[in-house]
Amino acid sequence: LSGADLAGLLNDAALLAARARRDEIDQALLEEALDRAGVGIAGARAPSEDDRKTFAYHEAGHGLVGRALPGGRVLHKLSIIPRGRVLGVTWLSESEDQLLHRRSLLIERMAMLLGGRVAEQLVFGEPSDGASNDLAEVATIARRMVTAHGMSGELGALSYASENGEAPYSQETARLIDAEARRLVEEAERLAHDVLRRSREELDRVAEALLERETLSLAEVEAIAGSTPVLD
Amino acid sequence: LSGADLAGLLNDAALLAARARRDEIDQALLEEALDRAGVGIAGARAPSEDDRKTFAYHEAGHGLVGRALPGGRVLHKLSIIPRGRVLGVTWLSESEDQLLHRRSLLIERMAMLLGGRVAEQLVFGEPSDGASNDLAEVATIARRMVTAHGMSGELGALSYASENGEAPYSQETARLIDAEARRLVEEAERLAHDVLRRSREELDRVAEALLERETLSLAEVEAIAGSTPVLD
Amino acid sequence: LSGADLAGLLNDAALLAARARRDEIDQALLEEALDRAGVGIAGARAPSEDDRKTFAYHEAGHGLVGRALPGGRVLHKLSIIPRGRVLGVTWLSESEDQLLHRRSLLIERMAMLLGGRVAEQLVFGEPSDGASNDLAEVATIARRMVTAHGMSGELGALSYASENGEAPYSQETARLIDAEARRLVEEAERLAHDVLRRSREELDRVAEALLERETLSLAEVEAIAGSTPVLD
Amino acid sequence: LSGADLAGLLNDAALLAARARRDEIDQALLEEALDRAGVGIAGARAPSEDDRKTFAYHEAGHGLVGRALPGGRVLHKLSIIPRGRVLGVTWLSESEDQLLHRRSLLIERMAMLLGGRVAEQLVFGEPSDGASNDLAEVATIARRMVTAHGMSGELGALSYASENGEAPYSQETARLIDAEARRLVEEAERLAHDVLRRSREELDRVAEALLERETLSLAEVEAIAGSTPVLD
Amino acid sequence: LSGADLAGLLNDAALLAARARRDEIDQALLEEALDRAGVGIAGARAPSEDDRKTFAYHEAGHGLVGRALPGGRVLHKLSIIPRGRVLGVTWLSESEDQLLHRRSLLIERMAMLLGGRVAEQLVFGEPSDGASNDLAEVATIARRMVTAHGMSGELGALSYASENGEAPYSQETARLIDAEARRLVEEAERLAHDVLRRSREELDRVAEALLERETLSLAEVEAIAGSTPVLD
Amino acid sequence: LSGADLAGLLNDAALLAARARRDEIDQALLEEALDRAGVGIAGARAPSEDDRKTFAYHEAGHGLVGRALPGGRVLHKLSIIPRGRVLGVTWLSESEDQLLHRRSLLIERMAMLLGGRVAEQLVFGEPSDGASNDLAEVATIARRMVTAHGMSGELGALSYASENGEAPYSQETARLIDAEARRLVEEAERLAHDVLRRSREELDRVAEALLERETLSLAEVEAIAGSTPVLD
Repeated sequence: LSGADLAGLLNDAALLAARARRDEIDQALLEEALDRAGVGIAGARAPSEDDRKTFAYHEAGHGLVGRALPGGRVLHKLSIIPRGRVLGVTWLSESEDQLLHRRSLLIERMAMLLGGRVAEQLVFGEPSDGASNDLAEVATIARRMVTAHGMSGELGALSYASENGEAPYSQETARLIDAEARRLVEEAERLAHDVLRRSREELDRVAEALLERETLSLAEVEAIAGSTPVLD
Repeated sequence: LSGADLAGLLNDAALLAARARRDEIDQALLEEALDRAGVGIAGARAPSEDDRKTFAYHEAGHGLVGRALPGGRVLHKLSIIPRGRVLGVTWLSESEDQLLHRRSLLIERMAMLLGGRVAEQLVFGEPSDGASNDLAEVATIARRMVTAHGMSGELGALSYASENGEAPYSQETARLIDAEARRLVEEAERLAHDVLRRSREELDRVAEALLERETLSLAEVEAIAGSTPVLD
Repeated sequence: LSGADLAGLLNDAALLAARARRDEIDQALLEEALDRAGVGIAGARAPSEDDRKTFAYHEAGHGLVGRALPGGRVLHKLSIIPRGRVLGVTWLSESEDQLLHRRSLLIERMAMLLGGRVAEQLVFGEPSDGASNDLAEVATIARRMVTAHGMSGELGALSYASENGEAPYSQETARLIDAEARRLVEEAERLAHDVLRRSREELDRVAEALLERETLSLAEVEAIAGSTPVLD
Repeated sequence: LSGADLAGLLNDAALLAARARRDEIDQALLEEALDRAGVGIAGARAPSEDDRKTFAYHEAGHGLVGRALPGGRVLHKLSIIPRGRVLGVTWLSESEDQLLHRRSLLIERMAMLLGGRVAEQLVFGEPSDGASNDLAEVATIARRMVTAHGMSGELGALSYASENGEAPYSQETARLIDAEARRLVEEAERLAHDVLRRSREELDRVAEALLERETLSLAEVEAIAGSTPVLD
Repeated sequence: LSGADLAGLLNDAALLAARARRDEIDQALLEEALDRAGVGIAGARAPSEDDRKTFAYHEAGHGLVGRALPGGRVLHKLSIIPRGRVLGVTWLSESEDQLLHRRSLLIERMAMLLGGRVAEQLVFGEPSDGASNDLAEVATIARRMVTAHGMSGELGALSYASENGEAPYSQETARLIDAEARRLVEEAERLAHDVLRRSREELDRVAEALLERETLSLAEVEAIAGSTPVLD
Repeated sequence: LSGADLAGLLNDAALLAARARRDEIDQALLEEALDRAGVGIAGARAPSEDDRKTFAYHEAGHGLVGRALPGGRVLHKLSIIPRGRVLGVTWLSESEDQLLHRRSLLIERMAMLLGGRVAEQLVFGEPSDGASNDLAEVATIARRMVTAHGMSGELGALSYASENGEAPYSQETARLIDAEARRLVEEAERLAHDVLRRSREELDRVAEALLERETLSLAEVEAIAGSTPVLD
């Protein structure tokens, strides 16, 4: 578990404790929180139809953006089989042959990661709190593009990767890093949106297939969704 | 106990020590503070009628907002039975079936949490210091909506959830996060206010029932308050 | 002892050391500093008439503001009996029945705490360094009103209580918190000033009584000062 | 391993964990990340032709800039033999006789380090994430030129090298340090660009030679590329 | 030794080490630094006439300002007997009967502490590095006046004394604290300057007496300097 | 070794490791770095003529500025005998009789320390990275003049010497400290420049003598350089 995961877990446990008006976060609460967050603990209780539907569209969003963009095709399998209390799990391909990633490829990968959130917005009009892991991963990529890979026009080839965790740069630079990272994320979000707006019908079909079969390979997504949309 | 609870507890103990002009926070003071804060320790001394009345309206505020909004219906039971020196305890439903929470649902949940404070303002003209736990919980939700769930129009889909506790973002972003979190809280507060303004009479009835019976289920609140108000 | 007390104590010991041109803060110096600060160690040397007079007016200021305002009536006893080298000790009532405190009541309590300083300014034209404990307690109340109890118009119902000691908010918010806390303290200071300006003669009478009897109960203060002044 | 290397390694391991949807960074993932980053572990799997080509141009960029500039001639050998999953390794000369380095020489060394990135941009139109080590090394040199060696016109001969890791200087100075370091990097980048723009054809020849022979000495680079370009 | 003393001591030892081009601060260097700073270790080597003269004027400055102002009369004895390598030691009166200190008295005490530096400036046209302990003590008093005693017009009665060492206030407040503390120090410096400008001749006489007798009581200073100057 | 020395050492070792493409900083690399930095380890490999010449001018610069200014005459011996891989070592006089240092004397001492860098600029047109120790020592003196000795016109007699390592002052003050320290360094640099511009021929003679004899006492410098230049 990363530090962020652990913090989120304790957070969840604290919310469970607050909800149950208990004084302490005991073992049981931690386990329930772990169970909720858990990817590895299958089964438990049957999710509501509402949650299943949201997850299905979320996963279909990942799948359709991933299918459409070369940098997004690290997707291997989509699944909404409940694992613990989490349903939507997009299995990424475990092996990636590519060693180097150009700027445009990283943008496409972020677009795939944002596909779940964008699908929710298209279908339900607003996002849910189910995309926070996706957003955290996207933020890590975007920040590294700006601070370590010199992929920001504004900040150029100077590396701002802090060696010891403390920011060695000025507030002015911090502000530029934030602005540039956000610009990259917005570029990726627009890309995901363009793909899904052109695949609105396919989104329904893939989500429905997921609700029925619970797991789809990328090949099956392609079979269901047909030819890839042409972007401008 | 969360860190915030512990800090609050020590704070209370320090205030008790100051009040008694004692030099140290000893075991006895800590226990008194725990007792005051304590949800689990019942009994002690009979509260004043003034405090009972304030708590009754505070709890009734939670109840009526919770009843009126889908996202607020995690309430299970309202109670003003003294537990230690704290009276007002809103028991939340222990089990929540919902895995994902859309933006509007989180706003409604915050509105329910703010219902106690808003009721005090409506009835007594000013808030008391009894709502600090509610406000802290609301702040946590609002901040996560902005920094982790991408639910702020201004800040978009970039995640600002700090992985190691230190803020990795700029002052400019910190300012936007504060402003956006505050905007969400104000939206929720307006919602709570709209509900209670339309339920002013029901508020008196539920508070009176609480003063008599000391505990009410959500079903009993609904029986007392009648049909839910229609919001614009 | 709180951290602030301890720091103050070491500070005093360092000043004593500097004054005596000693190289180290040894046990004796620490004990002298403790003695000076000490509330619990009675006796020692007879204070100067000058110091007794200042302390008497300081305590009388607490007493008269406390008497005049509902939120200030937690005062129990005024005393200028030397305890260690500190004279002025305002004994607060050890038991407080009230669980909840409205905004106006907290303002009144701060006014009572500021009464000592305001009395010194009225009588001697300038404050002394004898009010720092009062000011620290007032600052704690004012800051919590702003950051934890949502009692600032500017900052609203968002809680800014830092969970782990680090400020999670922006400089802009820090500036607003400072400004709002200062506004609350100024409101309380004006209130204390209004009370004492209307009780200028009573202030002399109570201070004189303290110089004679060294200890006064709140009832005795009321007997000496007569009817409470009417504020606008 | 430096702290930055270690952080990068853990970062990579975390990405691998995320990609494999695993909950923890275990020994195996760390080893895979080490393997990926590893310079010392040869072999593993055959890289794609795409990656080999990118690495060959990247290394040829280092080689041609290094050859053209006195301060860049610490290069000893270029190699794209896969070591772990990393291909491009520019072997620097192990012994450097020079004790002192003038400002212009340090600019040239930075230009050589940026040569890989600049070559990628010239040939493929955009940079990849393969240059982050180069950029980090360049940033260290540029920052020391500004803060420790007094080589910035704006900041002059005052040393800003923090003794204990915390910046002892103001935000205004931090801003100037960032701006000056960036100016130096841009100067070096322009220099690398000037060299490679004049050696575009040689770049193809050296890259092709690297794809064939996998390792080139500086002498072999010179034999392939012919006479050094004349800069303005 | 206070933390500041210890830091100064290590600093001095580091300078000695640098001066002797030694790699480490060993026991011997620490002892030499202690000796230099040492008030308690008498004797060592005879100081230069130049240093004796500067110290004599510095001490005479303390003495004459202290004599002229009620708040400065905690002086007991002036001495330039070498203690270690430090000559000028102003012995303060070991017992102070006063418990409370009004604003004007603290200003006068700061003026006395600044008297040494002001005398050096009057006599030699520029200050030396011999006043840093005085300045540190003055800064502590001035900052506490502003942050703990509410003696700044700008900042009012709000206490800004940080409880745990971290500043809990905003940059805007930090700026005001700096400005107000500086204003108080300047007020004290002007006061010291006014006294010494009017006592220029007495300054020579007291300094000469110190060079001859090496130690003077406050009574002896008064005998030498005659009647106190009248300030405007 | 100071913390800065240690950091520099590890830095150097890391550069050596990077240069040798090694994965770890092992004992051997640390020893090589220590050797490079080492003042105490003589011998090793013969330096290049280029480095010897630069060091000779650098040391001659120290010597000629030190000779010309009273505050710079703590110089005892100049030497370019290789110690480890460092050549230029200016031996300072081990005993200094002066206890107090006036502002102008500290400026002169800084000028002497900057003399090496200024000489390099005069002779070679640009500075090398050989002056970082000099610059760090100058920065320490300049900062203490501003923050501890009250020798800045802008900041006055308020001491800003942080007691516990954390800056207790505002950004505005930090900015002023930086600006004032830089102004002092520039004043010293101009002074060194004035001396050396007037001693350009003597600089050649002293440098040549150092290349021949490798060590010169201050008396020998004076014998070679003749009478001291007259500054305006």
